[in-house]
Amino acid sequence: MSIPSAPPRLRGVLSPVVTPFKADLSPDAERFVRHCQWLLANGCAGLAVFGTNSEANSLSVEERMVLLEQLVQAGVPAAKLVPGTGCCALTDTVRLSAHATALGCAGVLMLPPFYYKGVTDEGVYRSFAETIERVADARLAVYLYHIPPVSQVGVPFAVIERLLDRYPAAVAGIKDSSGDWSNTAALNERFGARGFDVFAGSETFLLRNMSAGGAGCITAGANVNPGPIDRLFRNWQAPDAEKQQAAIDAVRAALQKFPMIPALKATIAHYAGDPEWRTVRPPLVELTPTQESELFGALQALGFEMPRIGV
Amino acid sequence: MSIPSAPPRLRGVLSPVVTPFKADLSPDAERFVRHCQWLLANGCAGLAVFGTNSEANSLSVEERMVLLEQLVQAGVPAAKLVPGTGCCALTDTVRLSAHATALGCAGVLMLPPFYYKGVTDEGVYRSFAETIERVADARLAVYLYHIPPVSQVGVPFAVIERLLDRYPAAVAGIKDSSGDWSNTAALNERFGARGFDVFAGSETFLLRNMSAGGAGCITAGANVNPGPIDRLFRNWQAPDAEKQQAAIDAVRAALQKFPMIPALKATIAHYAGDPEWRTVRPPLVELTPTQESELFGALQALGFEMPRIGV
Repeated sequence: MSIPSAPPRLRGVLSPVVTPFKADLSPDAERFVRHCQWLLANGCAGLAVFGTNSEANSLSVEERMVLLEQLVQAGVPAAKLVPGTGCCALTDTVRLSAHATALGCAGVLMLPPFYYKGVTDEGVYRSFAETIERVADARLAVYLYHIPPVSQVGVPFAVIERLLDRYPAAVAGIKDSSGDWSNTAALNERFGARGFDVFAGSETFLLRNMSAGGAGCITAGANVNPGPIDRLFRNWQAPDAEKQQAAIDAVRAALQKFPMIPALKATIAHYAGDPEWRTVRPPLVELTPTQESELFGALQALGFEMPRIGV
Repeated sequence: MSIPSAPPRLRGVLSPVVTPFKADLSPDAERFVRHCQWLLANGCAGLAVFGTNSEANSLSVEERMVLLEQLVQAGVPAAKLVPGTGCCALTDTVRLSAHATALGCAGVLMLPPFYYKGVTDEGVYRSFAETIERVADARLAVYLYHIPPVSQVGVPFAVIERLLDRYPAAVAGIKDSSGDWSNTAALNERFGARGFDVFAGSETFLLRNMSAGGAGCITAGANVNPGPIDRLFRNWQAPDAEKQQAAIDAVRAALQKFPMIPALKATIAHYAGDPEWRTVRPPLVELTPTQESELFGALQALGFEMPRIGV
C-alpha cells in the first residue's frame, strides 16, 4: 500500500477563473467548464478557481464544492486545479481544503481568516496550522494567499517561517498579491531555497518574478490574456522579454481602469458574443455601457484578441 | 388566515453574545444557553447572538443554525433574539436570514458583504435588497450592521434611504459601531422619525443615544455588565445618569485595554470559575496570564461584579 503524496507542483501561469452566473445569480457550471477548458488550451498551466477574481467569497461553501466536482466530472484534470479554500471560519476552510485535496487537486490557495483585523502573527499561524492538522492528508499542498489590499489581513514572513519549519511538506508556496514588488522579491530570497514556490499576484511582475527565481504568476489577467502571459513565462530569458512584458502590461492597464472583475467578465462576454457572462453577484456591479465601450476601444487599439473563445 | 407579521420591536440593551467553545474548538451549546439565560435574567432586553463579538464569522453557516435552534429548543424566546446573518456570500446571508425569521426571531443583524473593498453604494444596496427579496417573509426585520472598523465596508446613508423607501416594513434599524458619535446622532436625526431604530454599538454612547431618540445599545460590554447598562437605559433621564454612564464607561475602558473578545471570555471564565470559557477560535488568541491579572485587578478596583453567574 502506498502512501498518497501531493500531485506534482505547478509552475507557470495560473488563472483565478472568473465564475459565471445565470440570470438568477446561481453559478453557471456549463460556462464555467467551458472557460476552464479554454484557459487550459490557451496557455494556463493551472486554474486557481475560487480566487478573489472568481467572486469565491460571494459563493457558499456548498456552491464551491459542487462547482469543483462538476469541473472534475467534466474532465478538467484535478492535477491542474488550485482552488481557493480560505474562509473566515476555520471549519469552512478545513472542509473546503479537505474536499479539494481528496479530489486530487494540485493544491489549495488559502486566505487567512479575514473578518477580524489587527490579529496577531500567533493567531494567523494558528489558523493555518490548525487547518493543516485537521485536513490531515499527506497530499495537501497549501499556497498561502497574501492579498492585504483586499483581505486586509496578510501573511507575515514570521508566520511563513514557522509554517515551513513545522509543515515543510504541506506548505508549497504563496500567491503574493500585495502589489509590492519588494515583498515578492524578499519572499523569493528568503524562502525560495526551501522549495517554497512564489507566484506573483499580477502578470505585471512576471518577468521580475522569473528573474528572481519565482514559479510564475496567478493573475486575473490570465482570464482573458493567457497566451501572451504564458509566452513570456516560457521565454522570459529571450531578448524581447521586456517588450513582451510591456505588451502584457498594456492590456492589464486597460482592464485596470475599471473594476477588475466586471471588466474581465465584460471582456469575455464581448469576445465570446455571450452577454450572460456580464453577470456579477452583489456587492459587485456590472460595467455601464459607457465603461464597456471605453474598455473595448482600448483593448482593440492594443490589437488585443481572445482566440477561439467559447469553442 | 392571518398574515404573519414581525415580532414586536426590541428596545434596550442587547448583548452580542460571546460564543463558548469546547477544547476541540466546537461550539459549546450548553454554556451558550446558560450564558444567554443569564443575560436575559440580568438586564438584557435581547440577544444579538452571532455578532462580531460572538466570533460569528469564525463559525460555519451550519454551526450557527444548529446553535440557534438549540437556543430556542432550550427555551430562550425567539422573540428576544436578533442573530447576525450577514456573510460575504449572498446565498449564505439569505439562508441564515430566512432560517432565523422562520424561527420567529425578533430580527436579524445584517453585515454588508465584507470581502470586497471599495464597493459602490449600488452594490451594497443590491446586497441588502436582493436578500430581502429572496427571504420573502413579511416577518423579516433587518437591523443593518455598520461596523467599518472591522468589516471595512459600511452602510452609507444613501443606501439606508433607498432601503427604507423600498422596504419600509423590513428595514427596522441599525447597530452603529462606527465609534463615531456624530454618525449615530445623524442616523437618529435623519431616519428616527421613519420608525428606524438606532442602536449605539457601544454602551459608551448609551446616554447620548437615548437623548437623541435612539432605541438602546447592542454592545459587547453587555456580556459581562448587563445590569448597570440596563439601569442606565431605564433611567437615562434620572439626575445621576451621567454618573451611571461614567461607571459603565470605566468598566468598558478596563476591558478595552485588551483584545475585546478574549477579554470578555476571560472575565466570564474568572467570575464563573469556569476556565473553559477562555477558549477562542483562531485567528483570535486568549489573553496571557499577565494580561488576565491586569484585567481582573482593574475590574476589582472598580468594584465590578457579575451576579450569580453560571446559575
